[in-house]
Amino acid sequence: MAGNSFGQLFRITTFGESHGEAIGVIIDGCPSMLDVDLDYIQGELDKRKPGQSKITTQRKESDTVRILSGVFEGKTTGTPIMMLIPNEDQRSKDYSHNTDVFRPSHADYTYQTKYGIRDHRGGGRSSARETAARVAAGALAKLLLKTQGIEIVAHVSSVGKIDAPNAEILSADDFIAEREKNIVRCADPATANEMIDFIDSVRKDGDTVGGKVSCHILNCPVGLGDPVFDKLHADLGKAMLSINAVHGFEFGSGFEGSEMRGSEHNDVFIKNAEGEIKTMSNYSGGIQGGISNGMPIEFKVAFKPVATIMHNQATVNAAGEAAEISGKGRHDPCVVPRAVPIVEAMAALVVADHWLRNRNTQLTIV
Amino acid sequence: MAGNSFGQLFRITTFGESHGEAIGVIIDGCPSMLDVDLDYIQGELDKRKPGQSKITTQRKESDTVRILSGVFEGKTTGTPIMMLIPNEDQRSKDYSHNTDVFRPSHADYTYQTKYGIRDHRGGGRSSARETAARVAAGALAKLLLKTQGIEIVAHVSSVGKIDAPNAEILSADDFIAEREKNIVRCADPATANEMIDFIDSVRKDGDTVGGKVSCHILNCPVGLGDPVFDKLHADLGKAMLSINAVHGFEFGSGFEGSEMRGSEHNDVFIKNAEGEIKTMSNYSGGIQGGISNGMPIEFKVAFKPVATIMHNQATVNAAGEAAEISGKGRHDPCVVPRAVPIVEAMAALVVADHWLRNRNTQLTIV
Amino acid sequence: MAGNSFGQLFRITTFGESHGEAIGVIIDGCPSMLDVDLDYIQGELDKRKPGQSKITTQRKESDTVRILSGVFEGKTTGTPIMMLIPNEDQRSKDYSHNTDVFRPSHADYTYQTKYGIRDHRGGGRSSARETAARVAAGALAKLLLKTQGIEIVAHVSSVGKIDAPNAEILSADDFIAEREKNIVRCADPATANEMIDFIDSVRKDGDTVGGKVSCHILNCPVGLGDPVFDKLHADLGKAMLSINAVHGFEFGSGFEGSEMRGSEHNDVFIKNAEGEIKTMSNYSGGIQGGISNGMPIEFKVAFKPVATIMHNQATVNAAGEAAEISGKGRHDPCVVPRAVPIVEAMAALVVADHWLRNRNTQLTIV
Amino acid sequence: MAGNSFGQLFRITTFGESHGEAIGVIIDGCPSMLDVDLDYIQGELDKRKPGQSKITTQRKESDTVRILSGVFEGKTTGTPIMMLIPNEDQRSKDYSHNTDVFRPSHADYTYQTKYGIRDHRGGGRSSARETAARVAAGALAKLLLKTQGIEIVAHVSSVGKIDAPNAEILSADDFIAEREKNIVRCADPATANEMIDFIDSVRKDGDTVGGKVSCHILNCPVGLGDPVFDKLHADLGKAMLSINAVHGFEFGSGFEGSEMRGSEHNDVFIKNAEGEIKTMSNYSGGIQGGISNGMPIEFKVAFKPVATIMHNQATVNAAGEAAEISGKGRHDPCVVPRAVPIVEAMAALVVADHWLRNRNTQLTIV
Repeated sequence: MAGNSFGQLFRITTFGESHGEAIGVIIDGCPSMLDVDLDYIQGELDKRKPGQSKITTQRKESDTVRILSGVFEGKTTGTPIMMLIPNEDQRSKDYSHNTDVFRPSHADYTYQTKYGIRDHRGGGRSSARETAARVAAGALAKLLLKTQGIEIVAHVSSVGKIDAPNAEILSADDFIAEREKNIVRCADPATANEMIDFIDSVRKDGDTVGGKVSCHILNCPVGLGDPVFDKLHADLGKAMLSINAVHGFEFGSGFEGSEMRGSEHNDVFIKNAEGEIKTMSNYSGGIQGGISNGMPIEFKVAFKPVATIMHNQATVNAAGEAAEISGKGRHDPCVVPRAVPIVEAMAALVVADHWLRNRNTQLTIV
Repeated sequence: MAGNSFGQLFRITTFGESHGEAIGVIIDGCPSMLDVDLDYIQGELDKRKPGQSKITTQRKESDTVRILSGVFEGKTTGTPIMMLIPNEDQRSKDYSHNTDVFRPSHADYTYQTKYGIRDHRGGGRSSARETAARVAAGALAKLLLKTQGIEIVAHVSSVGKIDAPNAEILSADDFIAEREKNIVRCADPATANEMIDFIDSVRKDGDTVGGKVSCHILNCPVGLGDPVFDKLHADLGKAMLSINAVHGFEFGSGFEGSEMRGSEHNDVFIKNAEGEIKTMSNYSGGIQGGISNGMPIEFKVAFKPVATIMHNQATVNAAGEAAEISGKGRHDPCVVPRAVPIVEAMAALVVADHWLRNRNTQLTIV
Repeated sequence: MAGNSFGQLFRITTFGESHGEAIGVIIDGCPSMLDVDLDYIQGELDKRKPGQSKITTQRKESDTVRILSGVFEGKTTGTPIMMLIPNEDQRSKDYSHNTDVFRPSHADYTYQTKYGIRDHRGGGRSSARETAARVAAGALAKLLLKTQGIEIVAHVSSVGKIDAPNAEILSADDFIAEREKNIVRCADPATANEMIDFIDSVRKDGDTVGGKVSCHILNCPVGLGDPVFDKLHADLGKAMLSINAVHGFEFGSGFEGSEMRGSEHNDVFIKNAEGEIKTMSNYSGGIQGGISNGMPIEFKVAFKPVATIMHNQATVNAAGEAAEISGKGRHDPCVVPRAVPIVEAMAALVVADHWLRNRNTQLTIV
Repeated sequence: MAGNSFGQLFRITTFGESHGEAIGVIIDGCPSMLDVDLDYIQGELDKRKPGQSKITTQRKESDTVRILSGVFEGKTTGTPIMMLIPNEDQRSKDYSHNTDVFRPSHADYTYQTKYGIRDHRGGGRSSARETAARVAAGALAKLLLKTQGIEIVAHVSSVGKIDAPNAEILSADDFIAEREKNIVRCADPATANEMIDFIDSVRKDGDTVGGKVSCHILNCPVGLGDPVFDKLHADLGKAMLSINAVHGFEFGSGFEGSEMRGSEHNDVFIKNAEGEIKTMSNYSGGIQGGISNGMPIEFKVAFKPVATIMHNQATVNAAGEAAEISGKGRHDPCVVPRAVPIVEAMAALVVADHWLRNRNTQLTIV
């Protein structure tokens, strides 16, 4: 109700501030009898954690997750699953200079005005630290989807104006393996090097830069998504736009599609060698009428540049008086390498939810 | 639950197929004591209705709305408001050739597979006719917002590759008046003429083309939007992506913002002459941390080209056999002129919902 | 959100005032491919409609239901099902004397104070006329449950202090047939006669009397109900308490159970001749830990006497001044005969919802 | 969705098993700027904790609550509030004899069948230990309501067939003080002694007994409760029926009211000395048409006897074979003394939720 829950049947509720004791998540609605691979979940968190490389923040958090309920002898029991991630490296004093000053393009001003109070240490609830809870819950959703053969893979497709060529994905595992060979998480090695050099130079300028993450959902069965309002891409869009710093979402032909003609844009149906109905092109991005059509689901997410820069900036304080803010703290010069597991996690939560919802579509389960 | 409801406190549920007896909507949660201007609501529907001009479908529907409950002596009573729009011009026989064949880039295949049954007459529930119910409900939301001075205005900013210059909006009423002077609903007269000529030529080709709608929310108070998942732009994004044919959403700096540096992207806070805290630039698009910051809220929506074209197209039938579909029926060559009131309506529903939600943010209502 | 929706997966939203144009309901979430027997639905409404006998109100309403969407060629399509019931016999002038006066033990005062406005004609939204929409939706839920062999039967078990003996139900159809032989809807013929005479004498006094309805859910599979908050009996309780005039709900041993000892109250498990696990007694009322256990589900609902009596009564008007109200209009001397189909309908809505919800309990559907 | 959340605007989600690491709750939707009195919250938990006296279970749990998020410098911030209660005294081995055997009138059989798996140690999620999380969240709701002068007080009104006289409540604090003078939590001292002696004798028999809790909500403003389905008493009823061992709920005249005539049951409106509209009698129990009417809200909750007795009992095992279960462990001979704070907590959650909901009823907040 107050916006900290997501999903209808596979439903998560997150809590926690960046500089409180812990963050975490309750997952309600995960079916019983699912094998829980805690190492896999921790591995997903490790991809999001700070301090991974020279192009991410130098804060250190192990982001070690503990499951406090809902799992018994390695399996889900159908009761709510509580995952707790203690906060470790909260240097609250780094933020003492921000108590009374509104950082540009952060949530300080809007939180203070909306709530009349805010935990000013490092963004509090508005910190991207909250996304660790999403990654933990999303990892469980991925484990659920893997039992159905559904795979979700993302990578960094743009940093600033550097674009990777479109990825052809033959195997989810190979794609992830390739992506994980470089610290920027781009599956194209040549582009990755270019991106890394660019981020590093931006970092040395004390500046930041935006980028894009592309995501692919593979082996999704036909039928997921509930028209009218809960179209699969509408729920994916909301999921992505709820991630910190996201300013845009497109699927299939996206914004470019709006420049095309129907005669070139229409995806022609064919029967493939296995006797399945597929489309020759995929401008629909795997979703037609809000429902998955059995083709790969493809979408792209645009992230603005991180607002915390190492420059002095003019702003105002809580009294509305002119003030200056100096860039301190430890921040990411570019958020997209660490955003990859977040995008995957949010996509997994949407698909898991709709997979469950779809089981009740027809009177007889098919 | 099955996706036909939208909103939490100002909550709508729509029903109806394009070729059934009627479509309509129940609005639950509208506060009591709101003056209901039925002429205004009908006027919004008139902007969406078919048959308006040479560049829209030639189907004729008066789209006359009736309110069956929830309004007494011209005011809302706090009980659910039911709005009914009878279907008039259902030439079901136009669709008899589609019974067994899947139209490319329509929802025929996905609906048939998901539900095991579909009303094949004109798209049934997947028809954009459903959006008339949204426009009716959205008009009521606009009336609610007008009591707070909040205005929502959209126009066609692109058709194909023809882009209108960025609009400076001084007055919502003037902007709408200018936009309504031409049949493409673009507020820039010169661009409008170019767009109209282009759509007309596409129509003569039996083809269709996509476009973009830009929307501005004016006089929105600081504080609307609920982090974490129900960020204002996340709910706006879902709302827009749930509209038929939408393939992309961006707000503020959007996709271009992902190519920028933080030092140029940050919106510097200032105190204006009225003593209000504002930002010098508006790359944030009026929303920071998911919460409105008092600047104009600005977003853009990308529509793919209409899938129904007047060409013969290859496809498959329900048995998966090769088939051909011939373009018949009466359809829009470009959907964006009629999409403008739909975009405004969905935006109004989101803002009305969050305006109500925000009244409960603090212990003492401020 | 504003309380006009019920259920999570099989979800209904009702609308309409007693003296408006129509009442009705949207059902969202009914699975596709369910055969819709409109005669059955109308038959359920006929059991609730006014004017059935000398012991019900003499108002005349045919309560003819029309389905405007969601059904195609006799089957549900998975899209929202809209059912409309026009109001016919609205003698609004009967209520002109109530405009400014608060009827004792009605909702006039609370509605006026809460909403600042009310449709004062016959109770408006607070009228029990709203329950016709529930009966229509509940009839569809019953059709869904019948595909699973689940039957729901209720009857009048008490009128005033006249109690029917506990019913032994061997066949749902026989039970209903017996119950429908008399106008008070009690399955025990001797008690029924006594009840009818009593209600008739109360009616002649211009007075009213309360009563109880007992309900039995037969052939319910093990496993329906979601702990912790959505226990099956908690949802049944809310459903019943939401019916006009209900003041109490108990299941299984109920209030009497609170006087018992554990050693007598515990239901001993046994294996029956068919190899099923059952209990020897059924103090649990078919529900243990909030989940159905395969025994008959049994509960009882207490209705207060109808507040509208044919006597002059002291009250106050909107200004708080002393006033007198004279009993006019056409009302039921005892509500329980017409409440039987309402109790069954609400029970069916709860069970249908939990039947759907339970299909997602385990990873593999069993 | 899976039943572990309660409330719409003041919304809680609980987690945890009796023999896991911890239990707890997330509260989402509590307004910001509320003073959080942690001692008060702990005090409420102390009234529910085991080991309080000779007539409660001898298990020892300190039930110490920690708040991990959502509170900053003693005030709520509007972000989710996480409360954690570690489990301390989990003698899992006490339950090793239950692994494969279904305890009579427990949830063992239904959980095992529904989920295919269960944490068999002490009831797992079905244990009443879960209610500690409700009491913690309810204590916060009470703090919210106290800012509005609303008080919620309950006491044990029956144990077995021993009934306390109806309480006249002049002051919530005095009532609670009187109630807390005895270990059975009955506000009538003479009845309390009788109840204590009876429970103690039942305990010595190795048996258990049921009882009733009566609850009063004082100073509730007119207007809380949302017709049609979310009537205030319907939500209170669901809340109470969701508490372990509850078999019945009634408000106002309750079951007895069903035996009365309208002419005696109607509550006559009067204007009192302060110029407020009140009723002379209160058979409506403070709620008319589902909405609070400014009179004290009064309801009663029936608890069945605890199922765990110290006798040997016949049952079946998971294979359906006859088995015997011997009563071991440490259990309550009568649950109602410890149920008093749970009833109050659940009532507070309902009223807090509806208090928030009601702030959005009218266009202008009154």
